[in-house]
Amino acid sequence: MRVHNFSAGPAQLPLPVLEQAAAELTDWRSGMSVLEVSHRGKDFVACSAQAEATLRRLAAVPDSYRVLFLQGGATGQFAAIPMNLTQRGETIAAIRTGQWSKKAITEAERMGVRATVVADEAASGYNTTPEPGSFQVPPEAKYLYYCANETIGGVTMPYVPQAEAAGVPLVADFSSMYLSRPLEVDKFGVVFGGAQKNLGPAGLTVTIVREDLLGAARPDVPSVWDWQAMAKACSMLNTPPTFAIYLFGLVLDWIEDNGGLEAMGRRNDAKAQRLYDLIDASDFYNNPVEPRSRSAMNIPFTLADPALDADFLAGASAAGLVNLKGHRLVGGMRASLYNAMTDEGVSALTEYMTDFERTRA
Amino acid sequence: MRVHNFSAGPAQLPLPVLEQAAAELTDWRSGMSVLEVSHRGKDFVACSAQAEATLRRLAAVPDSYRVLFLQGGATGQFAAIPMNLTQRGETIAAIRTGQWSKKAITEAERMGVRATVVADEAASGYNTTPEPGSFQVPPEAKYLYYCANETIGGVTMPYVPQAEAAGVPLVADFSSMYLSRPLEVDKFGVVFGGAQKNLGPAGLTVTIVREDLLGAARPDVPSVWDWQAMAKACSMLNTPPTFAIYLFGLVLDWIEDNGGLEAMGRRNDAKAQRLYDLIDASDFYNNPVEPRSRSAMNIPFTLADPALDADFLAGASAAGLVNLKGHRLVGGMRASLYNAMTDEGVSALTEYMTDFERTRA
Repeated sequence: MRVHNFSAGPAQLPLPVLEQAAAELTDWRSGMSVLEVSHRGKDFVACSAQAEATLRRLAAVPDSYRVLFLQGGATGQFAAIPMNLTQRGETIAAIRTGQWSKKAITEAERMGVRATVVADEAASGYNTTPEPGSFQVPPEAKYLYYCANETIGGVTMPYVPQAEAAGVPLVADFSSMYLSRPLEVDKFGVVFGGAQKNLGPAGLTVTIVREDLLGAARPDVPSVWDWQAMAKACSMLNTPPTFAIYLFGLVLDWIEDNGGLEAMGRRNDAKAQRLYDLIDASDFYNNPVEPRSRSAMNIPFTLADPALDADFLAGASAAGLVNLKGHRLVGGMRASLYNAMTDEGVSALTEYMTDFERTRA
Repeated sequence: MRVHNFSAGPAQLPLPVLEQAAAELTDWRSGMSVLEVSHRGKDFVACSAQAEATLRRLAAVPDSYRVLFLQGGATGQFAAIPMNLTQRGETIAAIRTGQWSKKAITEAERMGVRATVVADEAASGYNTTPEPGSFQVPPEAKYLYYCANETIGGVTMPYVPQAEAAGVPLVADFSSMYLSRPLEVDKFGVVFGGAQKNLGPAGLTVTIVREDLLGAARPDVPSVWDWQAMAKACSMLNTPPTFAIYLFGLVLDWIEDNGGLEAMGRRNDAKAQRLYDLIDASDFYNNPVEPRSRSAMNIPFTLADPALDADFLAGASAAGLVNLKGHRLVGGMRASLYNAMTDEGVSALTEYMTDFERTRA
């Protein structure tokens, strides 16, 4: 029996997508599994091109942007971004709102750039985002970096920072909120993320880069992360993660069949609101994030008595509500409500939480 | 209807593996697809550990070696190898036997090493391998690099070069012959390869590295390719390609159920011999590789009259024999006979080739 899976990623996928993949796993096209076809054969080339076309349609990706299907996860791109956009010793600017922006900044520094942290939310325990206009981007910065949604802290930047106006390209990690709502690609230089939250399986990274930023890479950027070379090769400079791209395409079709990104955004906001309403109406549950920066995707919460955590998780699991344990850095619980989390899943969770509070608080 | 798929990779997989993956794709463990489980959850941690344990058992990997599950393909490792084993400006030695060793050498140079090509088979059109003892490895070389099986040319190194004796670690790309026969891991410093030929789907790279070679990486190696950090994190420094590792595990189980690497080697040799015998007995078909260096995995061949190539391929495809077109650099045909290619597939191919020669030559 399928459970309601609140994992932060790899995460629940739409059941119709899994059913289609299962049905055609031994014979997809021409008597072969999609796992077995050459990436340079016409069937897979069409599959990859169709996934890109659907993504462009769904997210209104302008023609002046290239879509890259890469490997190595967002963490790989943490290194690839400075290698593609800077030379060693140059400066970047970054906003630090939690663990993932912290990791990205550390990795950029490892690649030999000077990172100027223009806003750091450490004082709040990374439960806030900087006010618009409260930070200055140094003009020598090659780009301004931020994480659109901090998966661990459950913190979302509630606006797109102004950096492009100052001529500094904006680079954002969208991993845990990719395609969960409309994406204003034209406000960014680079948008990237791992697929394993909203887009498909682990093993695929989708980077969208504005064409004028290509060609500035270091001479020693590894070929598989050389965005310009990958763009030229239609992401097939080497063998791409074919199954992951195929599944990504099925997920995109499912998003489109379900109304596209505006519909996803409305549904995701409604799902999250139900959980936040329950938490805020309760003295037993608590979410530490300032309301304007709360994530619709990842909702961490604590119980008033941490001694009840184990019972909460065991009871949830028995009720078919799994992967609710919070990240060790935050503690407590975390419910991730990506696109594929159903309304029924959220109802089951809120009912369980209400019952648990009533009987155990 | 399933066809006989001679693709060089991604390539045919064992049907029982695909059937199992299909059967459990919506519910693998605990009501979730393997595509949906957290990589840090106990089910996936056990799955990954079991795949490693089976690999160690099958290939007799000594305890002094670490097994890494990475992303970015062999082409990614072409960059990761010099970044893990050298500092910029240092020297490596390499044997050039075809396109893949050529690419690896170029990428190592891009990473700032001096590559001394100790043997180059260009004069034969890359249809040979150097005689044992015919080349000298400079003592300052940080490692000796070679490609165990050139997928495009169909050329296999028929012996393991002596380099370790001189204290120079041996690094070999086994992508297209990984686990096709016993692997003498203890003769190597590093063995690596993409999974999409003999091991599973595209999107997983398996690197086996001797422990004493860890810790010599450049400070600016990207974290996801930092072998020491990855070894410490049991390949989970970031989200690994979970589905690819799961499928790799199923393929390993299938290899073990079918007698292990010695049985694979005997069967692969027999399959290849049937095709080479047909080619050598014919004036119509030709394979250009010197006999001692012929690959059991990838068998390129040409027709006496290239004007018949299109007819050959169309007829083959109609007979359910697909992906036989040769690489553009070599022309003609190429039959890849990886572990999952059945005896029936080889019989169907040799029968078709015999018929084609009889009726069209």
